[in-house]
Amino acid sequence: MKFHYPNGKKYVEPERPSKKPGAKPKQVTYGNRGMTLEEDINETNLYYLAQGKAVIHKKPTPVQIVDVLYPSRSAAVIKEAYFKQPSTTDYNGVFKGRYIDFEAKETKNSTSFPLKNFHEHQITHMEDVYKHDGITFVLLRFSATEEVFLLPFPSLHAYWKRMLDGGRKSITKEEIERDGTRIRLGLHPRVDYLKIVQELYF
Amino acid sequence: MKFHYPNGKKYVEPERPSKKPGAKPKQVTYGNRGMTLEEDINETNLYYLAQGKAVIHKKPTPVQIVDVLYPSRSAAVIKEAYFKQPSTTDYNGVFKGRYIDFEAKETKNSTSFPLKNFHEHQITHMEDVYKHDGITFVLLRFSATEEVFLLPFPSLHAYWKRMLDGGRKSITKEEIERDGTRIRLGLHPRVDYLKIVQELYF
Repeated sequence: MKFHYPNGKKYVEPERPSKKPGAKPKQVTYGNRGMTLEEDINETNLYYLAQGKAVIHKKPTPVQIVDVLYPSRSAAVIKEAYFKQPSTTDYNGVFKGRYIDFEAKETKNSTSFPLKNFHEHQITHMEDVYKHDGITFVLLRFSATEEVFLLPFPSLHAYWKRMLDGGRKSITKEEIERDGTRIRLGLHPRVDYLKIVQELYF
Repeated sequence: MKFHYPNGKKYVEPERPSKKPGAKPKQVTYGNRGMTLEEDINETNLYYLAQGKAVIHKKPTPVQIVDVLYPSRSAAVIKEAYFKQPSTTDYNGVFKGRYIDFEAKETKNSTSFPLKNFHEHQITHMEDVYKHDGITFVLLRFSATEEVFLLPFPSLHAYWKRMLDGGRKSITKEEIERDGTRIRLGLHPRVDYLKIVQELYF
């Protein structure tokens, strides 16, 4: 599999596939890589920024650079690099002075959310943020039903510990419905998670 | 100029050159690329994290990926990529529930700090953070004298506007001494900027 983007142009996320009536949405392609939820959140964050509601950005993908060519100062070319596991969550920023930190994941499962979507250092990071009075949570998307839930970190942490203690390796949908809050999807913004944050944390 | 790191190993920042008596510190190499200050801040942030004082991380360098090879799922190789201009500052995180956001720069000048070290979108980002009650500032290092100052965003912004209005393209050292706070350098942590943050913002 290869990516080819025109050199020197800004990277633009692929368009979300428009849904023709009767056509099956291409959830396999996007669901696999979390593109749809990520795109929705990026759009939502741009909306928040433009509306003066919050300043929340996605962190760049961490890359381990191995070989760089400097044909000229203005156009260094990375010739060899590898994707690194992120040591934090993907999104953070400020909302009404408070620190916001979250991760967004999706699953094709319909009855439970697999915990393998998270890395241990991400849980550790969220635990640190929680201890320092930051607002931290996960956004979980069930792609089959297009439902998105906000699950506060303490709940995620409890289910993570259940797994470490030998329990199930996922959170059931019932548990997410009980401990989390469903986010109604819209157009502007697409995933208004700050509405829930406002209700839960302020 | 080429980088060669062993493949598959975690990228480690180069060691700060140890100063032998009489040997001139290699400030040109490091000062040019902001490595020393960056390394000091990264060490300081690790110290803060270990001490349970704050959770502050450097964002990954934004990279525009043009060509990726997937020989196997576990080892995708980026074959062509370019450095992108960051759209935010380099450092952010949480300190006592508050959002912290800053940029760190150094100069070899000894009498003034050139404003060309900052990009307009970084100023815009800090302005957004400031409006949302985040704590935002810059750490400025004069490498010749190894002095580091914390300059709150409103001061930086005033000098930025002076430049846009046709004024000087730098901040004089006197202005930085007057509007900023000098950070005493230590060993653990090396650059204890949160001490100043505590004094100024809490």
